[in-house]
Amino acid sequence: MADYIAPTREMKFVLKDVIDIAEVTALGRFQDASDDIIDAVLEEAGKFCREVLSPLNAVGDKQGAQLTADGVVASPGFKEAYQAYADNGWTSVCGDPAYGGQGLPLTLGSAVYEFVDAANMAFSLQPMLTTGAIESILAHGTAEQKAIYLEKMISGQWGGSMNLTEPGAGTDVGALKTKAEPAGDGTYHITGQKIFITWGDHDLTENIVHLVLARTPGSPEGTKGISLFIVPKYLVNEDGSLGGRNDAKCISLEHKLGIHGSPTCVMAFGEESDCIGYMIGAEHKGMAAMFTMMNNARLNVGIQGVGSSERALQMATTFAADRIQGKAIGATVPGPHAIIEHADVRRMLMTIKSTTEAARALTMLNAKALDLAEHHPDEDVRQANKGLADLLTPLSKAYGSDIGVENASLAVQVHGGMGFVEETGIAQVYRDTRINPIYEGTNGVQAMDLVGRKLPMQGGRFWRALLKDIGEFTTTLPDTDEFTGLKVNMQQAVAASEECAEWIVVQQGVNMRNALAGSSPFLRLLSVTVGGYLLAKGALAARTRLDEGDEEQDFLQAKIITARFYAEQIVPTTLGLKSSIMAGDELFFGIPSEQLTP
Amino acid sequence: MADYIAPTREMKFVLKDVIDIAEVTALGRFQDASDDIIDAVLEEAGKFCREVLSPLNAVGDKQGAQLTADGVVASPGFKEAYQAYADNGWTSVCGDPAYGGQGLPLTLGSAVYEFVDAANMAFSLQPMLTTGAIESILAHGTAEQKAIYLEKMISGQWGGSMNLTEPGAGTDVGALKTKAEPAGDGTYHITGQKIFITWGDHDLTENIVHLVLARTPGSPEGTKGISLFIVPKYLVNEDGSLGGRNDAKCISLEHKLGIHGSPTCVMAFGEESDCIGYMIGAEHKGMAAMFTMMNNARLNVGIQGVGSSERALQMATTFAADRIQGKAIGATVPGPHAIIEHADVRRMLMTIKSTTEAARALTMLNAKALDLAEHHPDEDVRQANKGLADLLTPLSKAYGSDIGVENASLAVQVHGGMGFVEETGIAQVYRDTRINPIYEGTNGVQAMDLVGRKLPMQGGRFWRALLKDIGEFTTTLPDTDEFTGLKVNMQQAVAASEECAEWIVVQQGVNMRNALAGSSPFLRLLSVTVGGYLLAKGALAARTRLDEGDEEQDFLQAKIITARFYAEQIVPTTLGLKSSIMAGDELFFGIPSEQLTP
Repeated sequence: MADYIAPTREMKFVLKDVIDIAEVTALGRFQDASDDIIDAVLEEAGKFCREVLSPLNAVGDKQGAQLTADGVVASPGFKEAYQAYADNGWTSVCGDPAYGGQGLPLTLGSAVYEFVDAANMAFSLQPMLTTGAIESILAHGTAEQKAIYLEKMISGQWGGSMNLTEPGAGTDVGALKTKAEPAGDGTYHITGQKIFITWGDHDLTENIVHLVLARTPGSPEGTKGISLFIVPKYLVNEDGSLGGRNDAKCISLEHKLGIHGSPTCVMAFGEESDCIGYMIGAEHKGMAAMFTMMNNARLNVGIQGVGSSERALQMATTFAADRIQGKAIGATVPGPHAIIEHADVRRMLMTIKSTTEAARALTMLNAKALDLAEHHPDEDVRQANKGLADLLTPLSKAYGSDIGVENASLAVQVHGGMGFVEETGIAQVYRDTRINPIYEGTNGVQAMDLVGRKLPMQGGRFWRALLKDIGEFTTTLPDTDEFTGLKVNMQQAVAASEECAEWIVVQQGVNMRNALAGSSPFLRLLSVTVGGYLLAKGALAARTRLDEGDEEQDFLQAKIITARFYAEQIVPTTLGLKSSIMAGDELFFGIPSEQLTP
Repeated sequence: MADYIAPTREMKFVLKDVIDIAEVTALGRFQDASDDIIDAVLEEAGKFCREVLSPLNAVGDKQGAQLTADGVVASPGFKEAYQAYADNGWTSVCGDPAYGGQGLPLTLGSAVYEFVDAANMAFSLQPMLTTGAIESILAHGTAEQKAIYLEKMISGQWGGSMNLTEPGAGTDVGALKTKAEPAGDGTYHITGQKIFITWGDHDLTENIVHLVLARTPGSPEGTKGISLFIVPKYLVNEDGSLGGRNDAKCISLEHKLGIHGSPTCVMAFGEESDCIGYMIGAEHKGMAAMFTMMNNARLNVGIQGVGSSERALQMATTFAADRIQGKAIGATVPGPHAIIEHADVRRMLMTIKSTTEAARALTMLNAKALDLAEHHPDEDVRQANKGLADLLTPLSKAYGSDIGVENASLAVQVHGGMGFVEETGIAQVYRDTRINPIYEGTNGVQAMDLVGRKLPMQGGRFWRALLKDIGEFTTTLPDTDEFTGLKVNMQQAVAASEECAEWIVVQQGVNMRNALAGSSPFLRLLSVTVGGYLLAKGALAARTRLDEGDEEQDFLQAKIITARFYAEQIVPTTLGLKSSIMAGDELFFGIPSEQLTP
């Protein structure tokens, strides 16, 4: 597999020229995150990902995690890589300084996470899920729970896992059956099985803090009767040292399409009636705690899609530049040529590149909104950014993960026959990234969340504000040859987004299913509109820097071309999407279920 | 994995009500192919595929073909299944009756092939490649060669393989280096290596007839210096019995993303300087012979995409009907509901269904055009159909294979987390079908062929005729509530196709690369237009039959809904495609290759 090179220059551009991370680093809390620190973190993370994590990507695919009598053993090299990862401080980038974290902005941590994921997606899931657990404990734990767990989890000494799904309770979490019965001493006995538990067991850390959703006796049905519990793999003594083994075990691993290096566990709690859990947060408030874990996880899954997509771009470009085959029509030097000179190959590469950059900017804007929503001193700014983050999260998750899959497939295509054999490594990207549209809420669930929950929030205040910003920005684009086409296409996209959002709002009052029928294309429409806007912002910034005589001529010129390509080739898909969305649900249910197949 | 049920009723509808196979069966050559025979062939094929081939699909995936000291051994059960396949006459459906074939139309054989492929894609490649070899020998072989090989190949006693690709010669076949030196006795010594040879060796048949492209001494460079050779695995004695082992061997198998049951061989010819080949056709005319093999192979690969897509539809529908999860908004009965009641899941299923049916109709129209082009008594009709088949072949290959991949991915998505674990089998479809857009000429090559060769043929006569037919048909659609939306969207699509084709024709005279930059979206645009037209034809036929009181109410009603869904949700993508196509190549090459990645 080709080396992965972290796109640090690109990421700095997104953070500084596109989403303006300075608004975040201006906050007192982040005063240490100077430009130099940002650059240094990105460079060091890129180096670590390239040198340590990337070489293990194919290793983990070939020899996945294994279930042994002593529990799950990670793929060769993963334990050592994890130790280095923790030692170098990568588990603690955004961690709360009160518990030993570095307290850097989530925006920067998210940028680092893209590199980690692109280098080794299977590996990256362990820190991602630990982060989810940390956030839950931080938000809902007692002072004592925080004292026991957080420092060790932030330092990477202990890991975390999230235990939600059961065989009959996937998307419908409320159907779960795992039980938590009071033991009389304030603790609970947990019994039940969870499936699809990512990194549910492993040998990377000395302990694993499982967060488990379960029902206390007599709880109401559905999501209202769910509580959250801390179930450590090893019990913890009062002095913080490890006690006995808790009755929480991985009993089998899934045989999966991809991410073989990430153990997907069936977890059994209380098989020997001796699983001890500690309630976290209030009884019956487990869903709220779960959403704390899940929201950032959704952004992270979108970022995973971007990471896969970046890796696909690098592999496809390298292959296309090396592969000599035939003569390219329109080439200025005599052939044979590398296939990168063929127009259709270039179409594929530019499609991957431009959608990757659009989705990256989207996820980083989302992360920035989360930082401001949490830490800005002004309540109005916090609220506005909370609303923006709520709106963007389903977009990040679904658009990021969808383009990850689409671009991996395009990159396989660029490889031709070599894309279908496993040795080149692009097939692994194609397999690995396919999980992203599924987990942490399928993309259909994201679309439902967008249309059903996020659009109506506060009377539609947040989407109106976002589209107003985009519309106003678009109007300010110069009427030059360079920007006119982009401007026209973006204006169409903004208009289509507004029209469709208004249509959906009306439908919500009449026939919710009519609105939901178009939810997936609407999510795509809005994502492409936001993506096009952010690329256009970057292009305008690049033009300004070029006009000011900036030295990075080629790089900045490429930003403009990429934004224009996206506007010209991707943004027009919004025309068809608008038509699809506003067609409603009539034909969706026109055929009885049993007539859908022979 | 869910059972595969051959869509026989659907296929009969396509053949009789959509593409009018009666025009083919009216020909004297096909007088035996009565409606009853067609029905019986489809039913029997469907039964065989379901009972024999489909159960081996997962078997072949888990235990792929193996290379042993005695050559390649197929997956467990494949040899017995193949024997039954041949015994039941499935290898000889379209075979020339002069050599023991049943002489049925290619259109019918193509319908059968879809079932075989959907049931077991890896298996289906063996008969497909044998068919290619048969066609080449039939078209270019001497009477003696035909006498030696054809009967045994058509009966399935011997297999065939096609040996084109070499490490440096994939799409650019002209770069191949395999040598053929005259032995002095009319035969040739072949030396060289071929890669990616599908079913290049196996134990299903007692002999394998390799067709090998090679260069004779002093041949001109490029495609003009290539000749075609018959290289049997076992030499053939004068009485037709098998002689000694020829020096043509599989020396390794590829480790692939999918179709593990289909051995993809590296073939070594003349490693011991003792590989005997027999020239077929004239010296230096190997490319013509290759295109004979390849044209039908391209249609078959498109059909493979349709087959994968049908299987994906069946698996996703079955899963969605069984999987109870949450409450579906807009459902008329209280929940919990099967996920098939959710609008977004229904969108995915209807998308798979409608695109599968569109692509199926396209491939069958293509097959029909090939039948008429070969066998119609009227020269003008033959010419017109030859032109139509030439035009449709890249569409069948690329659209069929692309929707195969897209729909397999959608079907994985419908399965949620269960789609990512291998046990449900949908992941296998996703992996297997990914080869279709690549082999037999990548889809980029198909798009180039469409724009560069097929559009300009005879001054654009064929595409103009096709779009004229579609336009006229569209005009005749009734202005009823049922058909109006479909009619409007189809008229837009026809107009977009015409406008883009005209634009491309102009560009071809000015800047060919400008035309080629939009070749892939143009191929998609034209495919969707033709697909929408064929579904509309079916819908109109269904409406007529319903009005006449036909008993198959639900089935016919479903045809109309499916055509309308396609017109409403898929056809509008042509709006964006038109915009992409006419944007030209300017931005494709705006970034120097080395700036595409960090």
